[in-house]
Amino acid sequence: MPHIKLPEGLPGISGLMVCRPETSQPLNELAQALLRANNTLSTSDRELVAAYVSSLNECHYCRSIHGAIAAHHLQGDEKLVSHVTRDYSSSAISAKLKALLYVAGKVWRGGKHVTADDVQEARKHGATDQDIHDTVLIAAAFCMFNRYVDGLATWQPQNPEFYRSRGALVAEQGYLNLKREPISLVD
Amino acid sequence: MPHIKLPEGLPGISGLMVCRPETSQPLNELAQALLRANNTLSTSDRELVAAYVSSLNECHYCRSIHGAIAAHHLQGDEKLVSHVTRDYSSSAISAKLKALLYVAGKVWRGGKHVTADDVQEARKHGATDQDIHDTVLIAAAFCMFNRYVDGLATWQPQNPEFYRSRGALVAEQGYLNLKREPISLVD
Repeated sequence: MPHIKLPEGLPGISGLMVCRPETSQPLNELAQALLRANNTLSTSDRELVAAYVSSLNECHYCRSIHGAIAAHHLQGDEKLVSHVTRDYSSSAISAKLKALLYVAGKVWRGGKHVTADDVQEARKHGATDQDIHDTVLIAAAFCMFNRYVDGLATWQPQNPEFYRSRGALVAEQGYLNLKREPISLVD
Repeated sequence: MPHIKLPEGLPGISGLMVCRPETSQPLNELAQALLRANNTLSTSDRELVAAYVSSLNECHYCRSIHGAIAAHHLQGDEKLVSHVTRDYSSSAISAKLKALLYVAGKVWRGGKHVTADDVQEARKHGATDQDIHDTVLIAAAFCMFNRYVDGLATWQPQNPEFYRSRGALVAEQGYLNLKREPISLVD
């Protein structure tokens, strides 16, 4: 049961977004700028960083929804997404993304863990200043989103079909002006 | 030295805010909504939560600036701020704020650490749903801000006078439309 009163039938961050519009507006704009707006990193790479950090924080909702969004951007390749969040080093992703996920893992542990060598390794594989900036901020932002969603004990459906259909919608529409309607779901 | 090229003379988050306006806009709006806008918790209580979480993350810049903002809201009582970030349980703050700082410490460890009993204890001392929501989100947001500032190895002055004067300015003007001009500072 959530720690505070939240609208029923709105899982994960959706209920939080509805209950407090003053903070949900900048949070959605941050997600849009980081994950969806045109940028040097592809949308699938950025969503994979989000899903990976959420898996490190063991946040079921964020890991599932951002994994599903990444999969939608990757022509439905859920196996690759699952491989990346489980053990990205042996997955079929670029050396550059592997180096950026390594940096994201350091950010997850704490900002001071990121070393000049970690950043240099990412640069060696083609990462730019903007790639490095965005990776650090995406990883940091999911240390926030995950704590927000779990720290208030939100409802997090187990049914993968929910994440698959919601993920497709967010992948296509982005994070701004998303409709948030109560769902009834048998897990 | 910062991990990416940042404008010189802009310490901590200031340089990051200038280098990437697409993300700095929602980040500043989030800080304004959480820390500065009218709300059920006082500005000093909210800045104390920010300073406390930043001290747990050992982020010198954020701990110092939000501690200075809190002190400005508390008629310059830097001793109280220092006491709160060092050991709030023995400091001269309300039982309600102590219970909320306990929740913030749990969020810092990870969202799932917050228990129904922790929240109940805060309610016993008068915390409302909105107080609990905002405490969780402030604590979560500083797990982001701290990682952003430290993860890119920003310049963080040691001179307390810098934080004192900058803190007074932010306390009075809020987080929107802050001027960010290079400073030259002998630490």
